[in-house]
Amino acid sequence: MASNFAYKNTRDFKFILKEWLPLQKVLDYPRYKDNYSVDDVDIILDTILRMTKDIIEPGSDSADQYGVKFEDGKVLIAPSIPPVYKKLQSEGWCASNVDKSEGAVVLPQVIMYPLWEMFSAANPALVPPFLCMCQGSSMLIQDFAPEDVKRKYLPKMFSGEYTGTMCLTEPQAGSDVGQLSTKAFPTNEPRIFNIKGQKIFISNGDNDFAENIVHLLLARVDGALPGTRGISLFIVPKYWINDDNSQVFNDVFATGIEEKMGQHANPTVTLSFGENNSCRGYLLGINPLEHEGKGNGMALMFNMMNEERLVTGVHSGGLIANAFYNARDYAKERVQGVSFTNSKKGRVPIIEHEDVKRALLRGKAIVEAIRAMTYKSYLDIEIAHWDPDPQERKKASDELAVNIPIIKGYSSEIGWDLIGTEAIQIYGGYGYVSDYPCEKLARDIKINTLYEGTTYIQSMDLIGRKWAMEKGAVFSRWIQAIKDFCEININTPGWEREFEQLGKAIKSYQEIQLCLAGFSKDKNKLGLIPTYAKRIMMATAQLYGGRLLLDQALLAEKKIRELGQDHYDFKFYQGKIMAARYFLLNVVPEVAGLAEIVKLADTSVLDIDIECFEY
Amino acid sequence: MASNFAYKNTRDFKFILKEWLPLQKVLDYPRYKDNYSVDDVDIILDTILRMTKDIIEPGSDSADQYGVKFEDGKVLIAPSIPPVYKKLQSEGWCASNVDKSEGAVVLPQVIMYPLWEMFSAANPALVPPFLCMCQGSSMLIQDFAPEDVKRKYLPKMFSGEYTGTMCLTEPQAGSDVGQLSTKAFPTNEPRIFNIKGQKIFISNGDNDFAENIVHLLLARVDGALPGTRGISLFIVPKYWINDDNSQVFNDVFATGIEEKMGQHANPTVTLSFGENNSCRGYLLGINPLEHEGKGNGMALMFNMMNEERLVTGVHSGGLIANAFYNARDYAKERVQGVSFTNSKKGRVPIIEHEDVKRALLRGKAIVEAIRAMTYKSYLDIEIAHWDPDPQERKKASDELAVNIPIIKGYSSEIGWDLIGTEAIQIYGGYGYVSDYPCEKLARDIKINTLYEGTTYIQSMDLIGRKWAMEKGAVFSRWIQAIKDFCEININTPGWEREFEQLGKAIKSYQEIQLCLAGFSKDKNKLGLIPTYAKRIMMATAQLYGGRLLLDQALLAEKKIRELGQDHYDFKFYQGKIMAARYFLLNVVPEVAGLAEIVKLADTSVLDIDIECFEY
Repeated sequence: MASNFAYKNTRDFKFILKEWLPLQKVLDYPRYKDNYSVDDVDIILDTILRMTKDIIEPGSDSADQYGVKFEDGKVLIAPSIPPVYKKLQSEGWCASNVDKSEGAVVLPQVIMYPLWEMFSAANPALVPPFLCMCQGSSMLIQDFAPEDVKRKYLPKMFSGEYTGTMCLTEPQAGSDVGQLSTKAFPTNEPRIFNIKGQKIFISNGDNDFAENIVHLLLARVDGALPGTRGISLFIVPKYWINDDNSQVFNDVFATGIEEKMGQHANPTVTLSFGENNSCRGYLLGINPLEHEGKGNGMALMFNMMNEERLVTGVHSGGLIANAFYNARDYAKERVQGVSFTNSKKGRVPIIEHEDVKRALLRGKAIVEAIRAMTYKSYLDIEIAHWDPDPQERKKASDELAVNIPIIKGYSSEIGWDLIGTEAIQIYGGYGYVSDYPCEKLARDIKINTLYEGTTYIQSMDLIGRKWAMEKGAVFSRWIQAIKDFCEININTPGWEREFEQLGKAIKSYQEIQLCLAGFSKDKNKLGLIPTYAKRIMMATAQLYGGRLLLDQALLAEKKIRELGQDHYDFKFYQGKIMAARYFLLNVVPEVAGLAEIVKLADTSVLDIDIECFEY
Repeated sequence: MASNFAYKNTRDFKFILKEWLPLQKVLDYPRYKDNYSVDDVDIILDTILRMTKDIIEPGSDSADQYGVKFEDGKVLIAPSIPPVYKKLQSEGWCASNVDKSEGAVVLPQVIMYPLWEMFSAANPALVPPFLCMCQGSSMLIQDFAPEDVKRKYLPKMFSGEYTGTMCLTEPQAGSDVGQLSTKAFPTNEPRIFNIKGQKIFISNGDNDFAENIVHLLLARVDGALPGTRGISLFIVPKYWINDDNSQVFNDVFATGIEEKMGQHANPTVTLSFGENNSCRGYLLGINPLEHEGKGNGMALMFNMMNEERLVTGVHSGGLIANAFYNARDYAKERVQGVSFTNSKKGRVPIIEHEDVKRALLRGKAIVEAIRAMTYKSYLDIEIAHWDPDPQERKKASDELAVNIPIIKGYSSEIGWDLIGTEAIQIYGGYGYVSDYPCEKLARDIKINTLYEGTTYIQSMDLIGRKWAMEKGAVFSRWIQAIKDFCEININTPGWEREFEQLGKAIKSYQEIQLCLAGFSKDKNKLGLIPTYAKRIMMATAQLYGGRLLLDQALLAEKKIRELGQDHYDFKFYQGKIMAARYFLLNVVPEVAGLAEIVKLADTSVLDIDIECFEY
């Protein structure tokens, strides 16, 4: 019961893919042409909804109960996971979709990720360590390894015989990746290095079912520069594959696993590389010894990291949605109390209580905002990669750069809030009991604010790097697009109040930016910038989410005009409209609230002496 | 390590009790006179800090790991708990303080509860089910049972041989207590009834160490009115004590326990009463059969319920404080990255990072606001009970009535936010790992938003019952007191901005009240009232917390003027000042933000059809 998968249909995904986003444009790219049509979306989504119920949900509880075991140096995975992993991989729902080789039939990401959202909802510990890590590491090898190396590893990563990881964190180098101390020593072979070091927090760092595990590892070549500039990226397989395809154990040991708040079936592994001086790594990217000590490992790894950040939005969206779908079903069954406005009706299912409806609508609105942001970004990924027009590619790539930290930061933070303060509350005391699903979803989602860069890192990425791209021009265009949308639609009958709020939020957001520009020139206030970073990141998502939901609502209204109120889709479209209204009139106004706070420019945080925290 | 108790001193409690609140006034009441002086506070607090470290903290982890077991109908408690329970009770740190018999030497509640805060911090599963339940049920028996019944049960409840409970919830009657179906049938003895029914979610409902368990149980006398009006309160011991002091098993069975998100050592028990038709209960209060079917069980139970709600503020404050004290200690040790404003200094302990300081200051400010509200309320309890002046008693009792739902609602809700989004984040990935304390504190605090009345129930209690007391006169005086404070101090040099924000918040709050008055007269908007209830409750706490912290800050500033900056207390007082500034300039402005949202009076929640939630 605890992992109950409560998605009933894929209507919102169909709306996003078939009605809202210009999917046809992507399907017309040569990479996808003749493989899929927009009409295939229905069958793909419905197949996966069924698959999720039939093969993902059933093993989810037992996996969580089994957890991960570490016995005699072996990492033991819950028995229900390996067959699912192999099935999903071999049937093409995962890593093989990054295959860029000619003739490969692949799913566009924007179609594939709704499926991952549902998988995540049904088993939160399945997607990140198993599917994501293998797809992400496959992608790096696909894009940056030479053909002979690809041939050794990729086919079995695509087919599910192998798993993959990314290895960044070390005990002293968490957010501070540049401090890593794993070393790489040159050998006689120019791209092969001996690796020595320890990595912690490695998702699926070891397991008992994969034939081989392909680690994408950051290390510093002996003699390279300190800090992030000197870091390189290596392929370090658990079993090294020789040119004759024979394999030899590559001196990679699991030395422990972590007990965690949630995600119990997700193996979080400590790895030791080269304990016996016989661990080899294959260098991707430039050799620092030939480039004044500089490595491009961080830049290469960020190709994968950005994907992982974005997929955190998918995962968060899935967990939040599932919490609210479950809470809805519970609220329909649970009879308790009378409604505030109609006590004569007697005791009612709690879904008729006004505040329960509010909680469900808040959840629905924010889930749909997260989906809108996320799937629009996957469309941008397609455009950025495959559009023939370089300007289109750049536009999509710029948008993506701005949106990734927002999606990662907002979806994970708001998930803790929504599941904990709304979905769990709908259950009353039962919300705290492990027989019901929401307490687990809250525990499972918490990791999303911490890994792949904490919320603070996302926030500083946004207001630092992303605001500053091309001296601010990229972000100006990002804001201008919202302004344009607002100006074009401001007189839409019945939506005046919502556009007024969006307009206000834009104005407030620009005031916030002005304040920060001021702080950056005042050494007494410079330190305020990081203290507002997270709040601004959240406000950015509120602004952007408001814009996207309004766009969807106008489309929904148009559909209702076309189809009439008796159409079977009427309630769906009405829901889109109400979600947008709620978001614009309850969530978006918080941007103005934040602006007032930022304008106060309170320096207590900078003024307080650290010793004051002793009391 | 997971339950590490990180309080270093009791300085803030000493400030509250010895410098801020008029404790002497309470100690002068005949009940306490000659027992304690203000100077005893130091030794009491320091004794307890040591006791917490020496006897509460050491058994906390093992208790959590043991959890609660249910074997052969027996509820097994973690072995580390019973000796601690008995020691605390027998040494007078708990139930015996409600003893009103002549000559009893008792601690004023306002002095005792800081101790419970520290106990809660060190073992979150100890205080609510064991200490609170026994003290609360003792209090009801003390206040409402005749002498002969008191004599049978109270001495051993005071001394720790017995435990106590309150039994309200049934499967179909959670928030809707009036729907309970446990019945009480008259016997030949006028105040003794046969009890039959089932109760769920009973904290410490059964255990394997108490000689007897005294249940305070709500049931409906056969023939009494339906709903809450017909409910009565009974003493239902596990072992019935005859007049000759012989005991007989009273047909009360534990039938199961709950697995929960946290609070693993806290027994949450399902109880069956009268399965073999031999369960007797002693009626407290009026007999419905002599009062037209009306019982006063709910009113009597609320004496205990209000205490439990208030103690939730103590418990939440303790868990939040401990999370932040731990995070502070971690932040002092953990070196990672450079500070935003001073990168030349190189890598620093993360406590020097601006955003980590912000998180710690936010935590400190809100913890101190919760403490200020809570301990001021315990002072009010003393005044309301023992002050010779009836006007003083009424004033304190009114204040208390308003503050209880705010304290219960705010402290528990903000705890989930603060521990989850600030304290855990300070640890980075380690925050998710069970070796570190904050993930457990987040899980443990979540129950506080659900039991003893959910947050929604607190919120409606505030904006319904409490706003309306004496046609609004009580709440008007509550607001007026803040206005008066603001007007008197508005020109305090250096505090202009803070008082301006407090003034704004008062104005905004009154706008919110006006909006709600409007909604109440408009049947299309009436349903908005419950949808804003929780947000208004939170804003009420922000306003009130701001007022109290400002008051404390002005006092701290006065102390600094008297003692100088070289005094060993300077950093403590500086911390109080900074906490107030942060709260007034970052938290209090949210009241104005909410007013803008309430003014929009968005009806999407009322307009949306329930079927829309199917998508």
